This record gives sequence, C-alpha cells and structure tokens, in this order.
Amino acid sequence: MPRILLKIAYDGTDFAGFQRQPGQRTVEGELDRALTELTGEPVLVIGASRTDAGVHAQCNFAVFDTASRIPPEKFGLALNGRLPEQIRVTRSFEVPPEFHPRRCATEKTYEYHIWSAAYPDPMKRLYSFHTCFDLDTDRMGEAAQYLVGEHDFASFCCVYTQAETTVRTVTSVAVEASGLRQPREIVIRVTGTGFLYNMVRIIAGTLIEVGRGARQPGEVRQMLEAKDRRAAGPTAPAKGLVLVQYRFLDEKLFDMLNHGVL
Amino acid sequence: MPRILLKIAYDGTDFAGFQRQPGQRTVEGELDRALTELTGEPVLVIGASRTDAGVHAQCNFAVFDTASRIPPEKFGLALNGRLPEQIRVTRSFEVPPEFHPRRCATEKTYEYHIWSAAYPDPMKRLYSFHTCFDLDTDRMGEAAQYLVGEHDFASFCCVYTQAETTVRTVTSVAVEASGLRQPREIVIRVTGTGFLYNMVRIIAGTLIEVGRGARQPGEVRQMLEAKDRRAAGPTAPAKGLVLVQYRFLDEKLFDMLNHGVL
Repeated sequence: MPRILLKIAYDGTDFAGFQRQPGQRTVEGELDRALTELTGEPVLVIGASRTDAGVHAQCNFAVFDTASRIPPEKFGLALNGRLPEQIRVTRSFEVPPEFHPRRCATEKTYEYHIWSAAYPDPMKRLYSFHTCFDLDTDRMGEAAQYLVGEHDFASFCCVYTQAETTVRTVTSVAVEASGLRQPREIVIRVTGTGFLYNMVRIIAGTLIEVGRGARQPGEVRQMLEAKDRRAAGPTAPAKGLVLVQYRFLDEKLFDMLNHGVL
Repeated sequence: MPRILLKIAYDGTDFAGFQRQPGQRTVEGELDRALTELTGEPVLVIGASRTDAGVHAQCNFAVFDTASRIPPEKFGLALNGRLPEQIRVTRSFEVPPEFHPRRCATEKTYEYHIWSAAYPDPMKRLYSFHTCFDLDTDRMGEAAQYLVGEHDFASFCCVYTQAETTVRTVTSVAVEASGLRQPREIVIRVTGTGFLYNMVRIIAGTLIEVGRGARQPGEVRQMLEAKDRRAAGPTAPAKGLVLVQYRFLDEKLFDMLNHGVL
C-alpha cells in the first residue's frame, strides 16, 4: 500500500498533546478520525514529533498507509474540511513504503516565546509565557552557548523519561528580542538533532532564571555536569513552545519536501 | 466622586462586542461586573471605542466614578484578578470628573491583519483573515492613498449607521507585508480622528479586492464619489481587526497618559 506523508501545523491549546490517548482529544486522534472517515479504512497515523499537551507546531509530520485512490497531493485539501480549524494539513505526498518519520536522521527547531511586560497581553496569552521581569537577553544568550554541542542533558530531562541515553546534540541556541526594553517579546530558538522529554521547556525555564538574575550564565556548565534534574531551572509552561521546523536529513526526501508538489 | 480612567486590552474572540447587552458576554459587561464586585457600588463604565463583536484591542479606554478608597493607580491589579484572561486593565488613573472619553478630540489607529498563504495558519486563525490570493501590496498601497484626507465616507459605512454626518478625516493608511511573497502577513494600518460603523473593515475588504486584481487602485476615488455602500468592497471579517492606539489629543491628558504613573 502506498505510504503518504502529511505536513501539519496545529494550535496545541485544546489538545491533550499529539499522541492518541483513549477518551482524550489529541492531534493524532483527530488525524486518525479524519483519515478513517475520508478513506473508509481504519487508519492509524505514525507521527514525527510527539509534542506535549499545549505545545504548538508550525511544522510537524505524520505518515499513513492507504489503498485509497485519492491522489497523494490531494490529501491536504480533502482532510482540512474534516479536521478542526486548530489543525491544518499544509502538504501531502507519497514517500517510500519503508519510510518512518522517527527512524531517520532529523533536525528540529523549537521556539520558546516569552512576553516580558508589566501586564499579560490577552492576544498573546495562548502562545507565550508572560513574565513581569525585564529579562537580560545578553546574559541569556551567554548562558545558551554552554548548551551548544554534544552533551549529556540528564539535568534538562523530565525524570520520567524512557530514553536509553540522555546524550543529545544541540546545534544552536539563539535568544532574540523585539526591542531593548519592556514591553517586548523574547524568543529562544533551539535547534538540535534530537531532544529529551521536556528538554526545550527546561532550557527555556533555566534561561529565564538567568535572564532575571537568579542564576549566573556560567552555572549552566555546572548544571550539565550535575546530570541531575534538580540542578537545572524549572520547566517553562507548554503554551510558549512551538515546533517551527522539522527537517529530514535524508537528501532525497529533503529535495522532495523543498521542491516537491504542494 | 472621583472619575477613574482604565486603559484596557482584550481578545475580542469570545465577546459579543464592547457594548453591554442583556444576556450577552461583552467587554463592558465584564468591566461593570468586576468593578461592582470590587467596589460594592453599582458601576456602569463609559467606554471610549465601542468595538464590534470579534474585534480586538491593544489600547482602549473606559471611565467610571467611584467613592471607593482604592488608590486610582491600583485598579489595574485589583481588577485583573476578577476579569477573564481575555481582558486586561493595563493602566488606571484619576481624570477630571467632567472627562468623557467619547466627547473629546481623539486619534485612533486600527490594524487589519491578513494571512496570505496557501493554507490557514492555526495559530493565526483568531487574529487574522486568511486568503489564498497572493495580494499585490503595491497596488493596495496606491489605492489606500485615495482614502487619506477629509472625505465623505458614505460608501465605506454600514447602511445601518446612526451617524449624523458621514464625513471623516483619515490621517494615514499604510500597507505593510512581512515578506515579498506567500506565505506572508499583510497589515493595513489606518489612522484617523474618527471612523464610521464598519469603516475600517470595509476599507480592508476593498483593499483586498484591489490587491487580488478584482478592482483598480483608481476606482477607490469613484467609490468615495458614489456615496453609496454598494460602490465599495465587502466588509472584511471582524477577527482581523485590532484597535492598536487610541490617543486623546487634549495636551494635559496626553502628558498624563504618556508620563503618568502606571
């Protein structure tokens, strides 16, 4: 049966995360339901990044197998009419039947959005974390550099992880701000080849502590060395996190995605 | 009794507009309820701009009279705990008892947000109008210039208006885009000393028609001359509209607002 790859974007506010769960509204569950309705086959998709409850995505992927005669590139339009407006399929195409979105080399970019102002902004409340502190973004940027490279991120991982190893490679961490002082939006952009459970949210929580002066930038090195979750800062709220890029590093697939049909 | 001015921001998605209406959830209704609870007095606020259902505001105002001993600048914090998170009071201070926010010279700036892309973006769905058309923003900017100045905007006004005159002064109309091609966000920014019912949404709907090639920029001049609602374009959806600035032109008040206590 042909395997179809869907590129998807979603507002995670109203979902109990990506992964299907009985009795819960999830992104995967909605895709399964819409595809089953559309094709008349019992479809269970395989997701790329299984984001947490409340986390958003501009770019995530899911695959499924189907005997349907719908042309591969038409699934986007056909599914969007059956999906809630919080989820949109933005592209779809056929991939090799052995392709598995989690069992291949990838690079992901997450953004963590902070609204630093005296008061919360109602229009940003679903998509950013509000803090009254006027964060020092130079200090945050300095602290961020200790995270770049291959490290044991055990201190930056939820203790309930099932990962076999806590070593991961972070390609870059950038801290950008929309202005020099409050009110302003601050974005932490983290790219890496893989992330542990809650890792980006713990990185964000730690950099926020550095930004408000509760920690020194150099402490991040000691946090990594400690290999103990208690050494790092708190887990920042899910709503500020967005998966903005998910790149398959396989050259052929990369070309298809970037030059392929819509 | 002292008169207190509140500066407010809100996400209009879940409200039946600003003005109080029996049995409906409105911004004014929520302010009345929260203030009545807080002060123990039956408060009815007077709003500055009475925005439509679904329209957002970064900057709007309301005044009320109170014998309460709460310091004027403390109403923000005290009210925010009693208001839904869709509404925030961002400043509060005492104004002269004769001050009425609609009976004084003001200048308002509205932004209309358009998401121009092959697919809607779930995270922008509540705050912008989505169009598949790749709008020509140069043409939109050219058309916009015909609107600047004092004109009879009868063609750009909902036919159910109660306004005595349809002559208004538009100070500036700017069309900005986040990039040169799709996907991109386009913002129409309109400033003026007063607007008719639905006027900014009809301007936006008209400029979108010009941007996609359905109308010529020069036709805007004929639309103004027609003084007939049917001559202009459609009314763009409310959710793309944000009141971003509301300036009181009285010098003393302007100084208070810009240099006053939080």
